[in-house]
Amino acid sequence: MDMAAGVEVFEWVNGEGKSPFVLVCEHASNHIPAAYNRLGLAEADLARHIAYDIGAEGTARLLSKLIDAPLLVQKVSRLVYDCNRPPESPGAMPELSEVFEIPGNKGLGAAARLARTREIYRPFNHALEQYLDARAAEGRPTAVVSIHSFTRVYKGKRRAVDLGLLFDRDTWLANMLIKSFPGISAMLNEPYGPKDGVLHLLNLHAAPRGLHHLMIEICNDLIESERNQQQWAQRLSIPLLQAGAKLGETK
Amino acid sequence: MDMAAGVEVFEWVNGEGKSPFVLVCEHASNHIPAAYNRLGLAEADLARHIAYDIGAEGTARLLSKLIDAPLLVQKVSRLVYDCNRPPESPGAMPELSEVFEIPGNKGLGAAARLARTREIYRPFNHALEQYLDARAAEGRPTAVVSIHSFTRVYKGKRRAVDLGLLFDRDTWLANMLIKSFPGISAMLNEPYGPKDGVLHLLNLHAAPRGLHHLMIEICNDLIESERNQQQWAQRLSIPLLQAGAKLGETK
Repeated sequence: MDMAAGVEVFEWVNGEGKSPFVLVCEHASNHIPAAYNRLGLAEADLARHIAYDIGAEGTARLLSKLIDAPLLVQKVSRLVYDCNRPPESPGAMPELSEVFEIPGNKGLGAAARLARTREIYRPFNHALEQYLDARAAEGRPTAVVSIHSFTRVYKGKRRAVDLGLLFDRDTWLANMLIKSFPGISAMLNEPYGPKDGVLHLLNLHAAPRGLHHLMIEICNDLIESERNQQQWAQRLSIPLLQAGAKLGETK
Repeated sequence: MDMAAGVEVFEWVNGEGKSPFVLVCEHASNHIPAAYNRLGLAEADLARHIAYDIGAEGTARLLSKLIDAPLLVQKVSRLVYDCNRPPESPGAMPELSEVFEIPGNKGLGAAARLARTREIYRPFNHALEQYLDARAAEGRPTAVVSIHSFTRVYKGKRRAVDLGLLFDRDTWLANMLIKSFPGISAMLNEPYGPKDGVLHLLNLHAAPRGLHHLMIEICNDLIESERNQQQWAQRLSIPLLQAGAKLGETK
């Protein structure tokens, strides 16, 4: 199956956006191209968090509009290839996701693994790479922010956090934003942190370039409706606009 | 000038090598493609450390043979584009290298910067990326080691170190190797360290994949002759072969 020839694996939204922020939503879509036969899953399974970050794309698109930022959206479910994992990771083409077995990912051979890496992970990553290269050549101030969502209950345990700001060494954006959400349970490096391997995309594209970056995780029960997504996009836009104005000054 | 169509920017040596180590020599060559008019430098300047890591390629090629490791060699001088720097770094296309002004790099515009990024940095990096992707799909144990050299005297100051083992968070290889060079001034993170931005290639290709890695820096007055290069390749090969045998077991 030649995915590169047919299936769209990424989309740029507002590519001409003037913001210093480049938004990325690498778990936007639950789409599984037909040739993968739903990886052996039932249609209903694709509506679960295992297939994509529920509400993340809608929120990211609205945020992109509010702050006039370019947004790179993934168009193929992370169950086929998780673009926030390197090809070395068992999580890139997971045999097990949370508590769900993924039949179509069982015992994948080297050729199948390499094909998915080349046809999904690489085109998505190269799209971001090319875009950041062009900004670098122009000397435009740039920071990379990825937008994710998480489930309230994971492996049977309820999470208290509503909003997670995730980072590793680059604390700049997280520290600027953490006080900006009164009345919301906002936490640093929750419900995941750098040790969980969730910062792969930022470690690949932002840190080695010396670009400020942040991963934003919103509990998906808060962004189910478009109305809620709009509320969250609005809420995030205010401190991001403030931080953006300072980006040219730092570094 | 379409470099991609004409000028070779990388070469794989011993691409079928069976070692778990993938060697990289990103400062191998002092070659400046004709279209760049030697960047306004005199012929003699290209023999200096500013243009390349003297002795590094010869040592890396001999080491590649001794441990049967694939080796990726850069074929264009770092003065045109330094493949161990991101496009955001002033050092990628330096206007000043050590104390030498580089006339052909003065005031480069966005189009020229992007052209060099696309024609030199990207093909070199994509070559390594594709190779590591294929190894990942096969599940081959892999570690990345880059081979560099430094000058005894830098900005008028003499350096005491002969051999530097450079790393950031991944201390595994450095700790295994540091005791293996009796009678030699071997030091950790000397004469440079992670804060100097010299680990870019490893931060881009090894760390985000979870691969062990190390940067080896040899003082270039010790590897001027082929005889000395052979001696150093031999010296490095012994602890690397020992470490390589343990690679399958760790991680």
